[in-house]
Amino acid sequence: MITFYYAPNTCSLASHIALEEAGAEYSAVRINFEADEQRSARYLMVNPKGRVPALVTERGILTETPAILAYIAQSFPKSGLAPLADPFAFAQVQSFNSYMCATVHVAHAHGKRGSRWADDLAAIAEMQRKVPQSVGACFDLIERELLKGPWVMGETYTICDPYLFTFAQMLEGDGVDPARFPKVTDHRNRMSVRPGVRKVVAEELA
Amino acid sequence: MITFYYAPNTCSLASHIALEEAGAEYSAVRINFEADEQRSARYLMVNPKGRVPALVTERGILTETPAILAYIAQSFPKSGLAPLADPFAFAQVQSFNSYMCATVHVAHAHGKRGSRWADDLAAIAEMQRKVPQSVGACFDLIERELLKGPWVMGETYTICDPYLFTFAQMLEGDGVDPARFPKVTDHRNRMSVRPGVRKVVAEELA
Repeated sequence: MITFYYAPNTCSLASHIALEEAGAEYSAVRINFEADEQRSARYLMVNPKGRVPALVTERGILTETPAILAYIAQSFPKSGLAPLADPFAFAQVQSFNSYMCATVHVAHAHGKRGSRWADDLAAIAEMQRKVPQSVGACFDLIERELLKGPWVMGETYTICDPYLFTFAQMLEGDGVDPARFPKVTDHRNRMSVRPGVRKVVAEELA
Repeated sequence: MITFYYAPNTCSLASHIALEEAGAEYSAVRINFEADEQRSARYLMVNPKGRVPALVTERGILTETPAILAYIAQSFPKSGLAPLADPFAFAQVQSFNSYMCATVHVAHAHGKRGSRWADDLAAIAEMQRKVPQSVGACFDLIERELLKGPWVMGETYTICDPYLFTFAQMLEGDGVDPARFPKVTDHRNRMSVRPGVRKVVAEELA
């Protein structure tokens, strides 16, 4: 049995959707970011980084979204969530997910987590000010180059899709007008009506 | 035949070492960051992100270090650079590499690439000021939790090792005293004398 730690409105949504769509048996545990529970002694024993997601398996604990997503795809191969038998196609999936975690997520994080990279309040405010531009530039690249359509990797739905959906859901909060990105918006609409996505989103926001 | 685009003193060193140690046939092309060649029209056709590394294969172009590293391990399975047959162990490798790209690399990048996240010069200077602290905190976690020893994943050398080495090489430049991290320093010393590492470092710095 897998235990999955998540928090609403964070990147853990991607792994949550993937678990659900893979048909995994898991229990989901919500971490209360408002109460700073991610930095509690109890949670730091699960994930010393003090972040979500974290996936507790029989073999041990996994963190970091790209690693968890690929693990879910490999552990539930019948779900077809990644092109496991084709190293090049799998690398394309991984390349997209690396871009999400190291560039898109990081651009987004300068909005509320600027204190990771500066202490001065004016500098943190300057970072916040640039979020619409830097996140917008990421989604320009996604719209123009990375999202093949109808799914991220083309005809086949993969672990890239819930990851893109997760950050597309944050566009308004990042001060970016989603209407600039018709392909991303269409993707987001089609993601929103998938049964697994509806179930997970409803659970996270309950 | 693979073509590999790199620049000295960047994260492309990790993939360069992995290619060499996998015994891949490849040609390495240096991109001149001093001349801003990564943003030239010619290079943007290779990688529209304007970054290194980029790996040009018969099937297409791959970017993002964690994706390239796993691709090299999968394409040259005899090199034993990743536990390909064990999804959990592979996920641990990927988790480490995700941390390197999304947290360690990002902390480092606030030193010279602060303009990605703020325009104001005082804010950029504030980001630079915090680099020793944020990079130092990353290496505290690596030293204490992530580096199992003697190699990152324990007894077996993997694609995690050149990635750790790449950012350990930058510690002095980031204003962090490597002596704080005895395990990382020992790892760096053992990496430095591997024949493939010596060859690639010499070529990059030539």
